[in-house]
Amino acid sequence: MSLIERTPHHAPTVVIENFYPTLGDSSYLIKRVVNEPLHVTADIFTDGHVLLCAVLKYRRTNEQTWTEFSMQPRDNDQWAGQCTFDKCGRWEYVIEAWVDNWQTWKKHFKAKFDALDPEIAIEAREGARLLELTADRAKNAGAKNTSKELHELANMLRLLPLEHLIEVLMGDDLQSILDRFPDRTLSTISKSNHATIERERARFSAWYEFFPRSAKNQSGQHGSFRDCLPRLDDAKAMGFDVVYFPPIHPIGMSHRKGRNNTLTAHQDDVGSPWAIGSANGGHRSIEPALGTLNDFEWLVSEAKIRDLDIALDFAVNCSPDHPYVKEHPDWFHQREDGSIRYAENPPKKYQDIYPINFHCADWKALWRELIDVVLFWVKRGVKIFRVDNPHTKPVSFWEVLIAEVQAYDPEVLFLAEAFTKPRMMQGLGKIGFSQSYTYFTWRETKQELTEYATELTKTDMRWYYRANFWPNTPDILPHHLQHAGPAMFKIRAALAATLSSNWGIYSGYELCENQPLPGREEYLDSEKFEIKVRNWNSPDNIKGFIRVLNESRQSNAALQYYDNLHFHAAHHKDIIIYSKTTPDLSNRILIIINLSPSEVASDMVHLDMNALGLSNDAHYHVHDLIHGLRYKWHGASNYVSLDPSATFMHLFRIES
Amino acid sequence: MSLIERTPHHAPTVVIENFYPTLGDSSYLIKRVVNEPLHVTADIFTDGHVLLCAVLKYRRTNEQTWTEFSMQPRDNDQWAGQCTFDKCGRWEYVIEAWVDNWQTWKKHFKAKFDALDPEIAIEAREGARLLELTADRAKNAGAKNTSKELHELANMLRLLPLEHLIEVLMGDDLQSILDRFPDRTLSTISKSNHATIERERARFSAWYEFFPRSAKNQSGQHGSFRDCLPRLDDAKAMGFDVVYFPPIHPIGMSHRKGRNNTLTAHQDDVGSPWAIGSANGGHRSIEPALGTLNDFEWLVSEAKIRDLDIALDFAVNCSPDHPYVKEHPDWFHQREDGSIRYAENPPKKYQDIYPINFHCADWKALWRELIDVVLFWVKRGVKIFRVDNPHTKPVSFWEVLIAEVQAYDPEVLFLAEAFTKPRMMQGLGKIGFSQSYTYFTWRETKQELTEYATELTKTDMRWYYRANFWPNTPDILPHHLQHAGPAMFKIRAALAATLSSNWGIYSGYELCENQPLPGREEYLDSEKFEIKVRNWNSPDNIKGFIRVLNESRQSNAALQYYDNLHFHAAHHKDIIIYSKTTPDLSNRILIIINLSPSEVASDMVHLDMNALGLSNDAHYHVHDLIHGLRYKWHGASNYVSLDPSATFMHLFRIES
Repeated sequence: MSLIERTPHHAPTVVIENFYPTLGDSSYLIKRVVNEPLHVTADIFTDGHVLLCAVLKYRRTNEQTWTEFSMQPRDNDQWAGQCTFDKCGRWEYVIEAWVDNWQTWKKHFKAKFDALDPEIAIEAREGARLLELTADRAKNAGAKNTSKELHELANMLRLLPLEHLIEVLMGDDLQSILDRFPDRTLSTISKSNHATIERERARFSAWYEFFPRSAKNQSGQHGSFRDCLPRLDDAKAMGFDVVYFPPIHPIGMSHRKGRNNTLTAHQDDVGSPWAIGSANGGHRSIEPALGTLNDFEWLVSEAKIRDLDIALDFAVNCSPDHPYVKEHPDWFHQREDGSIRYAENPPKKYQDIYPINFHCADWKALWRELIDVVLFWVKRGVKIFRVDNPHTKPVSFWEVLIAEVQAYDPEVLFLAEAFTKPRMMQGLGKIGFSQSYTYFTWRETKQELTEYATELTKTDMRWYYRANFWPNTPDILPHHLQHAGPAMFKIRAALAATLSSNWGIYSGYELCENQPLPGREEYLDSEKFEIKVRNWNSPDNIKGFIRVLNESRQSNAALQYYDNLHFHAAHHKDIIIYSKTTPDLSNRILIIINLSPSEVASDMVHLDMNALGLSNDAHYHVHDLIHGLRYKWHGASNYVSLDPSATFMHLFRIES
Repeated sequence: MSLIERTPHHAPTVVIENFYPTLGDSSYLIKRVVNEPLHVTADIFTDGHVLLCAVLKYRRTNEQTWTEFSMQPRDNDQWAGQCTFDKCGRWEYVIEAWVDNWQTWKKHFKAKFDALDPEIAIEAREGARLLELTADRAKNAGAKNTSKELHELANMLRLLPLEHLIEVLMGDDLQSILDRFPDRTLSTISKSNHATIERERARFSAWYEFFPRSAKNQSGQHGSFRDCLPRLDDAKAMGFDVVYFPPIHPIGMSHRKGRNNTLTAHQDDVGSPWAIGSANGGHRSIEPALGTLNDFEWLVSEAKIRDLDIALDFAVNCSPDHPYVKEHPDWFHQREDGSIRYAENPPKKYQDIYPINFHCADWKALWRELIDVVLFWVKRGVKIFRVDNPHTKPVSFWEVLIAEVQAYDPEVLFLAEAFTKPRMMQGLGKIGFSQSYTYFTWRETKQELTEYATELTKTDMRWYYRANFWPNTPDILPHHLQHAGPAMFKIRAALAATLSSNWGIYSGYELCENQPLPGREEYLDSEKFEIKVRNWNSPDNIKGFIRVLNESRQSNAALQYYDNLHFHAAHHKDIIIYSKTTPDLSNRILIIINLSPSEVASDMVHLDMNALGLSNDAHYHVHDLIHGLRYKWHGASNYVSLDPSATFMHLFRIES
């Protein structure tokens, strides 16, 4: 069948292309939060000397009605518009464009009128016909008076001397009426793009991770949810808004790991929470020592009172004791001897973990069950999940899971804990993870930090990858923190909290815990395998500093945006300087940090004044929100001196 | 319905993305010529610690069988492969990727073997199972002996000490057998991309345009096709391979234009060939004064003997006398007084032309008819069409027309004569025009030429836009040629013939015709409106120079590629220097031109030696193919002196 026969009504009349942003495959999701504008451009053109109209149309997936935004032409056939998505969920947006017969007529008519063209009367009748067609559309739309007025104008156009009408015809008032009833019968609609709109916490969040089983803070005692309020209050006092728990489910007994990841556990070893499942249940159950489902729901409600989200860990691992192993052995990888394959990365073995076979014959039931597990916790008030090692499960599985869960409750957010190769990390962002862990933990120098933060916030990654910067995790005590003092812990916290709008720490960071397993990037006596007791008010704690960081973030909207990062110039190798501003420049934050925890750094810094909305010779004040000091600055170049033992950084608000 | 239920067999197991080249919308066509390799890359990755296989698969549209090319991994999850399309037509190419169970098994097995893992026997049985499954696939594919051998090996793997087998198991011989029968049941296939493969003349062509009606070359005499042989021979002698005729159809009488585009024609004025249609017929007919269809077919056959293509002009314009006007008045734009709207760009009027209404109610029949017009001429041996003003007709129309005509005969080529805004020109390339006119005619300075040629050949335009460089056309005598001498005509010819692999001239260029309509970019006494008589051997002709240019193009493959242009450095404002090389560097051409037609330019030029496959301290010869001279050069920097009155350029072949 020829292309002509395949075309249903009319052939495309307008070309719409280079629709931006689009992520290669238009099924990928552009990320925004509620009411955050998305600026859209496209090249829109057609044949001949006609004028076009174009609208950007957007609606929540599966809704009928479009919201429209009138696009405006810019240079070189590019048009611009913006969507503002006012509800959480998946949205679709398209461009509809058509030849604007009235504007085209006006342009031609005016040229002929000015040229005293003898055929102007025929053109006038053409204009009258366009008015009458518009009148009919107005009538169909219920605008009877407008319809009548347009008919009257059409009659005048057919009869009256044109001199009396030309001003009305060319005027904005008439145009605005015509614009309400455009003739779109021959319009062209672009392919669809898709956005996932999440609540603001997807873009702006501060996470605090702790193990509830350590909450009793007494030697040898297993903490429970009922012991967690002091930790919640402490996190809240430090300004965190997401409290994240490692898995809370029953922990397997078979091949349970001992302290420091040893292969044999003692009888009183609590095991790794990531080895999920025992005779007490699986992913829908709670480790009995932590309490009951009621206790958990009570804690979630207490968190809610404090405006804290409780984030759960979704780790699709099973211990050999998980109920699935008996009920669905086919969901795992079978070995030739009939046993189930445990996790391994030869020659390393993880006999306490059975990986799931996501592509088994019964995969549809398996995927359904795993999605239902997440929904089980969503129904109990959990609206954030930190997903463990998503890169070792199919990307397509996460795409389905996130879509289904967010269709049920679009407030639910997902953080991808994928420390792996770049393409996989990006791919997980593209298919819907709300936030992602990053390589920040290993970016140390000014150049490394600048390049990486620029890649995250200035390339196309800004549309789909929301970095969450963690200076530490239970798995990672990076070399620069090992045996380091509070100065280094403050530097890394300040970088994380201001380079990205999302950051988090694993508890103990505020106490500057710094003892590694020798030669490793892991903690000595890791909390993954034992219960910890801490002095939460130890002398060297940096809780006050973290509180000021988070308070600055909360009271300065500029720090709540993700892709507004802008680097400025400093020649000193240890001085990093960057700004974040709100789109309207009403809030402008300038951060200057000495990356050395031991050496004083003093030098001139050079601002990109334009990025800050300042003229090159402006006089302005910078107000350090950490130290409370104000300085008068002038022009782009100013002097700073940053002493690790005192003012090692400035978090300036620019007040001009 | 959930995404799970919508998935038919299995969920995607592999992620394939950043497929390159892709033109935004994957329905757009990547251009190559027959047997020209297309290098393809994509990011291919999956979850977990497994090894992947990927193949690039390509086939002509609507054919069943794929040709496969084994892709190879490069850095950072990027894989590379290449297609070689061995026939003209539309092709589809996709990537298929899957987890390679055998290679994954080998990697894990070897690690366990080396670690003396006590469970190695179970792993061996797993390997035996994979061999048996492969044996079954081999048997199904008719490879009975291979199947038997694999079964035997599997048996040995179950029974024998592994020490005897490890070398065989890990070896390349076995791998290559396994590679022939991969398990693709869980493979993932990317979206399709599309390429249009054309004959070599789409990429490498030299056009000569002349008006057959001037072929008699006697005052007041209308030439016919039977008079054209001397012009064909002259074009052939100059090295051209496409002879392009303005429209050959009956020319309208109503509102016929007189000489120099005047509104009233005298009785003996021949009119513009672009005002098509009279009582003698329309787009399927021939202007009687030019001869008959038989005469035309004779001329096409004579051209074929000379290995010349005759290109026709496809101008979708109708004169008021065109048969369509009576037969299908609804195919035109009706005015309110019942008349048909003539072409205009107010206040300019073109009453000799009725534009077609491509979106009229009867558009399907109209489009069918216009496609059939092209096919009518294809069937009479015309394999190239120069399309007049395609940008004033719907892009979608050309997309359909080119697809249908090339489906009928994939040897047919289309040149878009769109002198308009960039996005439209690019859009016409994307939907299938084989070649396109360009802004070359107005690019004069070194910077303008460098930037423009780089945009055409080094950006994504290289995949879809084949520039055809014309120093002049019957419509355009650019300012730099007006009243200019042979030096300027040679410079512009040399640039056109070497910057692009496609170039062309409108006849008279070789005679350095340089008289404009005063104050315009058009020719005085334009051939568009009258018959011309010329002295084809006038003293100042540059036919010899053009012949050498075209001969150099024919005997140097480097000049036959389009996107192999590379600029080198020269500080002198008038010295432009660039090279073209074959992919294997067996042919290397270096062009150096003095852009000034009057001033001597002498300076050092600095070569990018790497681009020429030369070491930085290489000694090599450069052989000027125009002047026959050889120079010994050394290293990157060498001296040239270019005198407009003598050696104004070098067309060097590098001979090392």
